[in-house]
Amino acid sequence: MKAITVEPLKPGSARLEDVPEPDARDGSVLVEAIAVGVCGTDVEIAEGKYGWAPPGQTRLILGHESLGRVLDPGLARGLKKGDLVVGIVRRPDGVPCPACAVGEWDMCRNGQYTERGIKEIHGYMSERWRIEPEYAMKVDPSLGLLGVLLEPMTVIAKALEQVVFIGQRSFWEPKTVLVTGAGPIGLLAACGAKLKGKEVHVLDRAESGLKPDLVRALGATYHSGSLLDVPVEPDAIIECTGVGSVIGDAFQKIGSGGTVCLTGVGGGGVSGYAVADTAAKVVLKNNVIVGSVNANKRHWYKAAQALAQADRAWLGRLITRREKPEDFQKALDRTPDDIKVVIQFSEI
Amino acid sequence: MKAITVEPLKPGSARLEDVPEPDARDGSVLVEAIAVGVCGTDVEIAEGKYGWAPPGQTRLILGHESLGRVLDPGLARGLKKGDLVVGIVRRPDGVPCPACAVGEWDMCRNGQYTERGIKEIHGYMSERWRIEPEYAMKVDPSLGLLGVLLEPMTVIAKALEQVVFIGQRSFWEPKTVLVTGAGPIGLLAACGAKLKGKEVHVLDRAESGLKPDLVRALGATYHSGSLLDVPVEPDAIIECTGVGSVIGDAFQKIGSGGTVCLTGVGGGGVSGYAVADTAAKVVLKNNVIVGSVNANKRHWYKAAQALAQADRAWLGRLITRREKPEDFQKALDRTPDDIKVVIQFSEI
Repeated sequence: MKAITVEPLKPGSARLEDVPEPDARDGSVLVEAIAVGVCGTDVEIAEGKYGWAPPGQTRLILGHESLGRVLDPGLARGLKKGDLVVGIVRRPDGVPCPACAVGEWDMCRNGQYTERGIKEIHGYMSERWRIEPEYAMKVDPSLGLLGVLLEPMTVIAKALEQVVFIGQRSFWEPKTVLVTGAGPIGLLAACGAKLKGKEVHVLDRAESGLKPDLVRALGATYHSGSLLDVPVEPDAIIECTGVGSVIGDAFQKIGSGGTVCLTGVGGGGVSGYAVADTAAKVVLKNNVIVGSVNANKRHWYKAAQALAQADRAWLGRLITRREKPEDFQKALDRTPDDIKVVIQFSEI
Repeated sequence: MKAITVEPLKPGSARLEDVPEPDARDGSVLVEAIAVGVCGTDVEIAEGKYGWAPPGQTRLILGHESLGRVLDPGLARGLKKGDLVVGIVRRPDGVPCPACAVGEWDMCRNGQYTERGIKEIHGYMSERWRIEPEYAMKVDPSLGLLGVLLEPMTVIAKALEQVVFIGQRSFWEPKTVLVTGAGPIGLLAACGAKLKGKEVHVLDRAESGLKPDLVRALGATYHSGSLLDVPVEPDAIIECTGVGSVIGDAFQKIGSGGTVCLTGVGGGGVSGYAVADTAAKVVLKNNVIVGSVNANKRHWYKAAQALAQADRAWLGRLITRREKPEDFQKALDRTPDDIKVVIQFSEI
C-alpha cells in the first residue's frame, strides 16, 4: 500500500512509497484511511528535527491527526464495518509510570510511551492502518471529514480542563479567555471556550482575512498588534503560538488569580526577560502558568462532545486545503492563508 | 506608647517614637505586644521602596509578624485576658472582590485590601495594638515566643496547599520536595513538607553553619552550589529566594508533571533566558508554575497546626536574635548568620 514516510532526523527524506500492509501487532481493528491532518509536528519531523522510527526500522510512517473507515472491527465490540474512527496518538510502552498505569498517559512521567507517527510507532498517513480497539475513537458519522479535527481538539479539551481544575484551587469564576494565535489550535481553543460560555478574545498577527473572519463568526473578539494593548484583563490565557515574546507578554497580561496555559512549542532564542521581575508579578498576582501537552481518553471524549456541539459550517472553514497523497509536499509547505491542511486518502 | 514607625517611600525614616494609643477603629481586642518578627518586607519599607501610611497620616507603624498577650478581649468570644494572639495581616477594604467576599482575601483580585504594617493600616511594632476579633488568631500558650513564627508559616501553609491542590489535577503522588533558599521561609517550607512525610531537599549558598545544620536536623538533605546539580528529580520545588537565576534553574529542574511554587519576590534584572525554550519544556513535561502570596484564615489554621506539630527546639533555633525596640535598626540590618530576628517588646 502507499504511505508517506520519513527517515527520522534526515531533513527532506519524506516520500510517498509502497510499504507492507499494516502490522497485525498495531491492533486488531483494520481501518481504511480517509484523511490525515498536517500539523507543525509533521513539518518538523519532515525537516529532520526529531522523530523515531519503530525499533529495527529506518523509516517512520508520518501522521497523527487521523480519520478512517473501519474495514474490519477485529476484537472491538463497539465498532462495525463502515464506522468512522480516529486513532489515539500516545500509548504507554514499557514499564508504566503511575500516571500511565491509571490511563493518564498524557501525564507520562518516565517517557516510556510511543506516539503514532512521531515516536516508535507508525502514523496514519497510509492507505490502511491498524489500531488496538481501546485506542480507536468512534466519530459521529454526521461529522464526516470534520472528524479529522478531533485530535487537535483533544489538545484543547485537556488544556481547558487543566485551566478549570487549577482555577478551582480558590474561589474563581473565569469570564474572559484570551487566546494567542489563530492557527488551528488557537481557533479550536476559541471555539471550545466559547462553547463554555466565556467571553473570548483572540490575538494574531493577521490584520484581515480568514482568521479574523473565523474569530468574529464565533462571536469572539479579534485583536492584532501587541498582546499588552488588548483592552481586557483576562482570567485565562490559552497560549497557542509558542513564540517567546508572546509568552513573555502573556505573563504580564494575565489578570490577578488567572492562569496562563501554554500549549505551543515554538522557537526559542534568548530574549531580554527579567525572570525575577516577572516571577514577582506571578507571585503577587497569584498566577499560574501551566504547560499542557497531549491528551488522554477523557479528553478525547470531551473533544468529541465539543466537536459535536460546534457549528459544522464553521469547523468546515478550518480545513483550508485538501491535498492528494502524491502532493504531500504541498501539504507540508504551509502558506500564511492555511489553517488546517489535510491529506485525503479516500472519499467520504 | 512607643512604636517603630516609618514615613513610606522615604528611605531611612524609621524611628522609635511616642504615638497615641491604638485607634479603637482597629478593633475591640486590645493586645500587649510581646514580639514582632522582621522580614524582607520590613527592610524594604524602611528603605523607602514601598509602603502606605493610613489615610490622612504621614507615618506607618511597621511590623506584620506579631505575637501579643490579650489585655482586653473586647467583643471576642473565644479570647480572654492573658491569651497569646497573633494578628492576621491582610483584610478586605472597600468593595470586596468575589474572592474577598468568600474570605479568600489572599487571592484578592481588585487590590482593595489593607495590610497591617504594609498598606494603609498600622502594623504591630508598638507596645500595644488593637485588632478585630475575627483577625485575632489564638496561639497555643506552650509555643511561647515561637508564636511569632506563625505569620511566616502561613505563607508556607498556603503554598503547600496550592501545590497539593494543583497536583490533584491528575494522578500524582509527590514524594520529593526541593526548597530553594534556607532563610526563614525556606526552612519553614522544609519543615512543613517534612511534616507531610515528603523527602525534602534544601538548596542554599551557605556551605556550612546554622542553615545546613537546621536542614539536616529536620532529616532533610542540604545542598549548595547549582540547583541543576542537585541529584534528584523533584516533584515540587518551593522557590523561596526570588533570585532570577535560581527561578530559571527551577523551571529546568522540575520533574515531569511537577509544580514550581514561587513564593519569593526578589531582585529582577534582565537575564539571558530563552523564554520559548523554557516554555516548551514546561509544555512537554506538563509542569505548573504557581505564584503564591499571603494567606487566608484557612492557611492561618493550617499553619498553627503545623507549628504545633513541629519540634519546638528546632523552631527555637530559627530565632537567631532578639533586639530591643530601641535597637530596631540592628534588627533591620541583616547579617548572613541571621535567620529570624525579632524585636521583643515585653517578656513572655
